Amino acid sequence: MTTKPPIAKLGHVAIHTPDLDESLWFFEDVLGLYVVERDDETAYLRAQRDWEHHTLRITESGQQGVDHIAFRTSSPEALDELAEGFEAEGTDVTYVDADERKGHGEAIRVEKFGHPYEFYYDVEKPDAPDGERSGLKNRIYSETDTNRIAPRRIDHVHVQDEDETAKEHAAWLQDELGFQLNEQYRAGDGELWGWWFAVTALPHDIAIHREPAGSPSEFHHLSYHLDSLHDLWSAADILSEEGIEPDGGPGRHAITRADFLYVSDPASGFRIELFAGPGYLNFEPDWEPIEWTESDIGGETSHQWVGQGPDWNGLGYVDE
Amino acid sequence: MTTKPPIAKLGHVAIHTPDLDESLWFFEDVLGLYVVERDDETAYLRAQRDWEHHTLRITESGQQGVDHIAFRTSSPEALDELAEGFEAEGTDVTYVDADERKGHGEAIRVEKFGHPYEFYYDVEKPDAPDGERSGLKNRIYSETDTNRIAPRRIDHVHVQDEDETAKEHAAWLQDELGFQLNEQYRAGDGELWGWWFAVTALPHDIAIHREPAGSPSEFHHLSYHLDSLHDLWSAADILSEEGIEPDGGPGRHAITRADFLYVSDPASGFRIELFAGPGYLNFEPDWEPIEWTESDIGGETSHQWVGQGPDWNGLGYVDE
Amino acid sequence: MTTKPPIAKLGHVAIHTPDLDESLWFFEDVLGLYVVERDDETAYLRAQRDWEHHTLRITESGQQGVDHIAFRTSSPEALDELAEGFEAEGTDVTYVDADERKGHGEAIRVEKFGHPYEFYYDVEKPDAPDGERSGLKNRIYSETDTNRIAPRRIDHVHVQDEDETAKEHAAWLQDELGFQLNEQYRAGDGELWGWWFAVTALPHDIAIHREPAGSPSEFHHLSYHLDSLHDLWSAADILSEEGIEPDGGPGRHAITRADFLYVSDPASGFRIELFAGPGYLNFEPDWEPIEWTESDIGGETSHQWVGQGPDWNGLGYVDE
Amino acid sequence: MTTKPPIAKLGHVAIHTPDLDESLWFFEDVLGLYVVERDDETAYLRAQRDWEHHTLRITESGQQGVDHIAFRTSSPEALDELAEGFEAEGTDVTYVDADERKGHGEAIRVEKFGHPYEFYYDVEKPDAPDGERSGLKNRIYSETDTNRIAPRRIDHVHVQDEDETAKEHAAWLQDELGFQLNEQYRAGDGELWGWWFAVTALPHDIAIHREPAGSPSEFHHLSYHLDSLHDLWSAADILSEEGIEPDGGPGRHAITRADFLYVSDPASGFRIELFAGPGYLNFEPDWEPIEWTESDIGGETSHQWVGQGPDWNGLGYVDE
Repeated sequence: MTTKPPIAKLGHVAIHTPDLDESLWFFEDVLGLYVVERDDETAYLRAQRDWEHHTLRITESGQQGVDHIAFRTSSPEALDELAEGFEAEGTDVTYVDADERKGHGEAIRVEKFGHPYEFYYDVEKPDAPDGERSGLKNRIYSETDTNRIAPRRIDHVHVQDEDETAKEHAAWLQDELGFQLNEQYRAGDGELWGWWFAVTALPHDIAIHREPAGSPSEFHHLSYHLDSLHDLWSAADILSEEGIEPDGGPGRHAITRADFLYVSDPASGFRIELFAGPGYLNFEPDWEPIEWTESDIGGETSHQWVGQGPDWNGLGYVDE
Repeated sequence: MTTKPPIAKLGHVAIHTPDLDESLWFFEDVLGLYVVERDDETAYLRAQRDWEHHTLRITESGQQGVDHIAFRTSSPEALDELAEGFEAEGTDVTYVDADERKGHGEAIRVEKFGHPYEFYYDVEKPDAPDGERSGLKNRIYSETDTNRIAPRRIDHVHVQDEDETAKEHAAWLQDELGFQLNEQYRAGDGELWGWWFAVTALPHDIAIHREPAGSPSEFHHLSYHLDSLHDLWSAADILSEEGIEPDGGPGRHAITRADFLYVSDPASGFRIELFAGPGYLNFEPDWEPIEWTESDIGGETSHQWVGQGPDWNGLGYVDE
Repeated sequence: MTTKPPIAKLGHVAIHTPDLDESLWFFEDVLGLYVVERDDETAYLRAQRDWEHHTLRITESGQQGVDHIAFRTSSPEALDELAEGFEAEGTDVTYVDADERKGHGEAIRVEKFGHPYEFYYDVEKPDAPDGERSGLKNRIYSETDTNRIAPRRIDHVHVQDEDETAKEHAAWLQDELGFQLNEQYRAGDGELWGWWFAVTALPHDIAIHREPAGSPSEFHHLSYHLDSLHDLWSAADILSEEGIEPDGGPGRHAITRADFLYVSDPASGFRIELFAGPGYLNFEPDWEPIEWTESDIGGETSHQWVGQGPDWNGLGYVDE
Repeated sequence: MTTKPPIAKLGHVAIHTPDLDESLWFFEDVLGLYVVERDDETAYLRAQRDWEHHTLRITESGQQGVDHIAFRTSSPEALDELAEGFEAEGTDVTYVDADERKGHGEAIRVEKFGHPYEFYYDVEKPDAPDGERSGLKNRIYSETDTNRIAPRRIDHVHVQDEDETAKEHAAWLQDELGFQLNEQYRAGDGELWGWWFAVTALPHDIAIHREPAGSPSEFHHLSYHLDSLHDLWSAADILSEEGIEPDGGPGRHAITRADFLYVSDPASGFRIELFAGPGYLNFEPDWEPIEWTESDIGGETSHQWVGQGPDWNGLGYVDE
């Protein structure tokens, strides 16, 4: 009997913005995410095939920053066990009632290595509104009104930590949350620089990279998956039509072997990675982490770009 | 000194519909053509990169049928010479004043082999309206609002004639209008069945196929070109979302080597072929027509489908 | 604590052929699978990113037919527990020594509902030979020598059973092997006709469809996954170059939402489904099966083709 | 009566290499061009759908450099008239006998603005050898053995000149050779920097850009067209497998709106631009040149990259 890891999947990310309308212009009109629900302060968005209520929550608070990263657990029991484990090790656990959140049930919140994580199991899976429903039962929104980018589902998050914190954070994801280490990058200084972890068959659900000692723990990007390389290039076209400069790409990663385009919401400063193309799926129960070094990557071309440019600031966290 | 053929390119097709609103739902909302101008009775549409005022004119007249097929000449002189030639051979020429038509200057109209053809040289090339203009100078409409099908330009027309008429019609296109025969299909009866003609570098600007003796001269389809195979499959997706059954495809033609999807406007009955993919361009000044026979095509698969099913009716012409 | 299902993934299919050279022409030269190892009688093949020793075993035995379908278990313990469970319920279990098989360790073999299944955990993961190794650490074979189809990984199997057997077989996959039912199809007679099951994030790892009462239990197809729709159309091109008529497609399934092309090895009669395109990945821990009916599928177009034509015979099993 | 321009199309480029075997490894094994004919010193290559005998001639001469750029005329008479015109203006014309060249008939050679141009009309159009012939009559080489890049046809050349020479060269292409100016780029100094000319429906058959005063007249790149964006990214994959760093791309040009990847043959230093994607075709008989300025291009992203990096040396010409 092998036990499942407590985490089933990445759930959503909650962010702050100084201007909700401006952020919705970017995420809805330009990128093509769907607004499931909105009130004065907060909008809930998802991609065309995200089954949950939302995968991105945007709150107008006058600030830029990330509120939390949320994972869905593999069962209600797994959620309870996580809470017990955190309590046992002395981590402060905030219990969030179901009525404090839209779209999912009760949650727990902890801050680990400077990153606010939430965990929940129960979810709402709202259908598309009348007139927007796909005629296909295994879809949600109709293909007719989808734009040419058409993000299909949430893919992964990427965060950053200073030196030792990065290593401890990586160890915690493996040891306590049950993530599998798929790939890692060893920098020229002989130390690990980045870790790509998955609890699903994706190349990664969360990645961490290392910043210089003393750097704050920050959020780097949230990724949505597109259907094809064509959609990724449509994204580049549409961004150029709208006068938005991408942060990087289009290109193809050597690590994860996926096609990417990075772009940040001008209002919130929150970075999205549009992800497409082959990548790979990993079903092996005995996967050995793949280690890359500078000489493996072999060059500075965007085609094998490791994932960070010189002025790639992360985004800080905002206290709730 | 070699002289240019009198025809520069396919200009547009004008059709009738019993219900303009219904037809515009199909051509604009579903297929993604742009309405350049519209009054109570008539709408003028074009694809995203059609430089002329329109490539499809739709008139609500209570009838189904095609009004005319229009070619743009290679110069004003070529238009005059065409008129003179028609007069000289005794063909009735209707001179259409510039103010009788929107989007182009004076035209001449002749009926040849049962098909009403118009020719003109002067054109309007309206820009996209404010807010819809592409930021790229070599585009017209912005990529942002283009749907996932995004027809890019008019491609070709395909017409049909009974037996002997088809042969004479084909000879006229070559001899009088200067079209080059790129490919032809010889049927099992030893007679030519289809001809693919071009005056541009496209595999064809106009094709003719043969119907049984006594059949009327009819219009088979107008084709628009898409950027990629992905857009063609998006078309299939969107048609299925909207409950519209394609007439055929997606598939790949052996002749012309292009990817196709046929679909008819439910209101007007007018058939569109969405065209995409490699095809070929032909710049050779001494091209020898390629002849295909049944055994070359080799099978009934849609992948090498010749282009006509058993119940593929053409559409008749409507007297203006 | 939630336990993992005993099965981690589809491992391979073993088949018979009257002519190994002919079958290798089809699978290696035409489709682009890689031969990992071969002796006089047997060849072991895999796709470009299959980590295991092989995903297709072909044995020249003078017969056509399938030898067995093999799944890899999620742990060595899971393999033992499966064996114990089979013994406990009175199922005959054949214990296969590691030295009787190439590429994996000890296995158990049972015949369930007329289908020979094998299960194993230990595997060899041979690298590509010198000169064929990809420069990318998360690939196996180099992109340079890959053909234009380039199957990337094994995807799923599809089997068929008569009436009641199909239902019992489907129940067994769920109840004993821990597969999740992702989608099902209810035929016009009100009875379920097909079931799509997964133990991974794929739309399905194994599907079953129902044949008329009294029909034998047979194997329908093995599927390999391609990187894109373009590769699927390259497959159609290459098959037509080689004079091989596809069994169906290219088309897009409504169920599973994947792009497909079916084609059978002329020598062995074994059917492959080339699979590409969006499909979907399913990470939800509480998935509710999607049920389709004839009216949902909506038509006979290849674009929403359910997956079986009138003359689609399955392939029988061969006693080892 | 409008006369055709004397030039029908770009024919081929002839280059020198210090190592023919090394150059053939790059052009044939890596890029996927076909060797039509080869002797000890010279190889003749073409793309999968190039109808002429060759579109690239490579001669081992111990040097790096371009021998000549060749255009095919629109008729035999046009070739004679070109020669007469050159003689009349006092340009030295070298008459090249048919037996001095493989694959085409008699040619004339002139040096204009430092660039050696050849013109010819008669051509050989050899078929593919047995076993490599496509089953499709409008193809040459079979899809089965084509690699994943699969250049399909020669597209254009790009050359460079110092300041005033560039302007005169551009004027000559228009006035004497009949090229149409499709697009031009005006640099920040208010002067034109680049010109994109076509005599076919392509965005350009030849482009010129301006170098600082005193710079030599050099050759910048020869372009081959691929069928799709997917093939362009396969090129990037294969180059990275082979350890060859691209000179630039993949990216999408604003001018010409085509997708590109630049890469140079390590042996000859000769630069190829792989070209793919939408671009546009131009059939208008009254095209007005599109002028771009720095502010139109809008940024330094590769997506709208103009086409030249700081260290992009051209390649000199070698005296025959």
